[in-house]
Amino acid sequence: MSKTLAGNAVIGQSGGPTAVINQSMVGCIEVLRSCDAIGKILGAHHAVSGIVKNDFIDLSEIPQDRLERIANTPSSALGSSRDKPDKEYCKKIFDRFAENDVRYFFYIGGNDSSDTARIVNEMARDEGYDLRAFHIPKTIDNDLEHNDHTPGFPSAARFVALALMGDQLDNAALPGIKVDIIMGRHAGFLTAASVMARSREGDGPHLIYVPEVAFDLDQFIVDVDRSYTKHGRCIIAISEGVHDADGNAIATKLADTVEKDAHGNVQLSGTGALGDYLVGLIKQRLGENLRVRADTFGYLQRSFAGCVSEVDQREARASARLAAELAIEGVEHGSIAIKRVSDDPYQVEYKRIELSDVAGKTRTLPLEFIVDGCDIAPSFRTYLAPLLGELPPIEQF
Amino acid sequence: MSKTLAGNAVIGQSGGPTAVINQSMVGCIEVLRSCDAIGKILGAHHAVSGIVKNDFIDLSEIPQDRLERIANTPSSALGSSRDKPDKEYCKKIFDRFAENDVRYFFYIGGNDSSDTARIVNEMARDEGYDLRAFHIPKTIDNDLEHNDHTPGFPSAARFVALALMGDQLDNAALPGIKVDIIMGRHAGFLTAASVMARSREGDGPHLIYVPEVAFDLDQFIVDVDRSYTKHGRCIIAISEGVHDADGNAIATKLADTVEKDAHGNVQLSGTGALGDYLVGLIKQRLGENLRVRADTFGYLQRSFAGCVSEVDQREARASARLAAELAIEGVEHGSIAIKRVSDDPYQVEYKRIELSDVAGKTRTLPLEFIVDGCDIAPSFRTYLAPLLGELPPIEQF
Repeated sequence: MSKTLAGNAVIGQSGGPTAVINQSMVGCIEVLRSCDAIGKILGAHHAVSGIVKNDFIDLSEIPQDRLERIANTPSSALGSSRDKPDKEYCKKIFDRFAENDVRYFFYIGGNDSSDTARIVNEMARDEGYDLRAFHIPKTIDNDLEHNDHTPGFPSAARFVALALMGDQLDNAALPGIKVDIIMGRHAGFLTAASVMARSREGDGPHLIYVPEVAFDLDQFIVDVDRSYTKHGRCIIAISEGVHDADGNAIATKLADTVEKDAHGNVQLSGTGALGDYLVGLIKQRLGENLRVRADTFGYLQRSFAGCVSEVDQREARASARLAAELAIEGVEHGSIAIKRVSDDPYQVEYKRIELSDVAGKTRTLPLEFIVDGCDIAPSFRTYLAPLLGELPPIEQF
Repeated sequence: MSKTLAGNAVIGQSGGPTAVINQSMVGCIEVLRSCDAIGKILGAHHAVSGIVKNDFIDLSEIPQDRLERIANTPSSALGSSRDKPDKEYCKKIFDRFAENDVRYFFYIGGNDSSDTARIVNEMARDEGYDLRAFHIPKTIDNDLEHNDHTPGFPSAARFVALALMGDQLDNAALPGIKVDIIMGRHAGFLTAASVMARSREGDGPHLIYVPEVAFDLDQFIVDVDRSYTKHGRCIIAISEGVHDADGNAIATKLADTVEKDAHGNVQLSGTGALGDYLVGLIKQRLGENLRVRADTFGYLQRSFAGCVSEVDQREARASARLAAELAIEGVEHGSIAIKRVSDDPYQVEYKRIELSDVAGKTRTLPLEFIVDGCDIAPSFRTYLAPLLGELPPIEQF
């Protein structure tokens, strides 16, 4: 281990906000503040776009009680960005770092963000500039490789579980067919969380579709018909990213004009089009007089104030603390992964992994959790339950 | 006051479920059980439709701890119905009551439900059948006359407040234009609750539209343009029921085929069409490259498990208890209204009102709360705050 580097630190928050991304920022700040060699702690205002514009928020002297309130506030307090830095963009980031004597870079985000940390780190090394670059995991999609789960996911999954618990009771009271569209472009973890809403035989969701298996519209109608006939109602949880056998997202095929972000990702959230399309299809095929409704959970899933998972809060902060500790100890770069030690009692370890283990890779829901292409196995409940914290008890006649 | 009637009791839950409608049912059961003259307490399975089919759930002997768990479970445990009984239907209800020696009828619901209680009560009187008929208020829309507010509204308003708190922070992190569609056909109370998300100058929602004032699409675009220019972002809260100067709901005009329920109400919820339409309009008028998104909160607002208002739970139960107490004391019919005694400390009284005070009438958001057709006055916060319970503190840079 080399000696602790003297210099300043930059923290950034990238991509979609979560309910606990500020916990990670605060965990990082706390550790950095305890190190005398570190001068200023700078928050990148709107992530990489703030860095290149020299737009920083000074985080060095914020009183602890205010930091705690920020940690408990959902969404990204520093502001976020969807810019995907190319080589030229990264050069600008690096130039700002050099100008500001930045020796520590912590980037809280998903797999795209770890790639940015990796590129800037390699650039610094090529230039002989001593820089510590760490990625701190964050994504409600739970799609980072080498992670049991990622900070942000448990709180979003808790929202989905609570929403479906209520919605399946609502549907039991006023029976019909209900389509719930849940976030998840490539990974079905969040949609699978809907399975937590079942508290007894016959409870919904009765059908669950994730992007890991091809979605066939004809089979979907067969499934809905069968389930509706059996239960007299049908609650369907479905990922926004479901796609056909050729890999084309159903939602994309519906859009008149397809909007893409800088990462080439097509916009799936913030529109009710997929839900409305499926409602129309069900009515057309199974009967225009059926009571069929759709809700698209949208952005509420990632920033809802007040149903955060305490496990998630704790782990988001702990992951970030480890990144800061390793950087101070002299580890040049890395990402942090949560590894599960046991389910009961629930116990995890935080481990350093390589930036390249995470960068640009997408983890998906293991196929062992998917049943017949339209359901989720009970083993997924064992995996998910300890992450959510206590759920309100449900009692039905 | 006449002597307590001997006979059986029926409780029904009508219309859209809420997070606290089971509190009302349990409050009613508790009081009825304490009265020896009352034999069986029957729950109407799926409201009036269960009564006419003689489909009842026996509520007489359920242990108190199970009742408490049911009280804390969202949605209507007895099942609901959207049937609107006409004279013939009411005759069937009355016949079942006579067959089953039902002398007490408690119907938990909105203004349509109080009308059903009123019709059945008048029919009984005409036939010389001694019946106590009480309406117990319930509606997330908060649209019952003579009520300061109605059970169900505080919890739904809490959901809206928490959703907007998160969403406005999300929008601050990734700026753009965001349209949030909130339940409310004729009354804007729930949409107005979005104002609670503002914790400081510049916070969203920046624009709030309710059905009490005509919605003009051209003016809407002018408002959005002004707000987006000023804040660099714009969060818009808008009732699903907004309508043009001729009273035509904007959402209705968009639907290819308009679905109506037995009450003649057009389906507004369970579709993302209004939000998607407004997104398209904003892009078309203000720029195709703008980041514009919509979320339609849908059914989550009324049944979400785990963000109920404790004030709402208490009041829903207390309203129902009073109805049962009055019926036992010999009062023939009525509805219960919550009257506010003071804001600080928050204090209410429960009063009997006439069924005809509520039946078939719709209370709307007082115009004094509406500012310039696109905002909500601070005085509405004073009205709403004590109903929601504590909201999580928000801290921003």
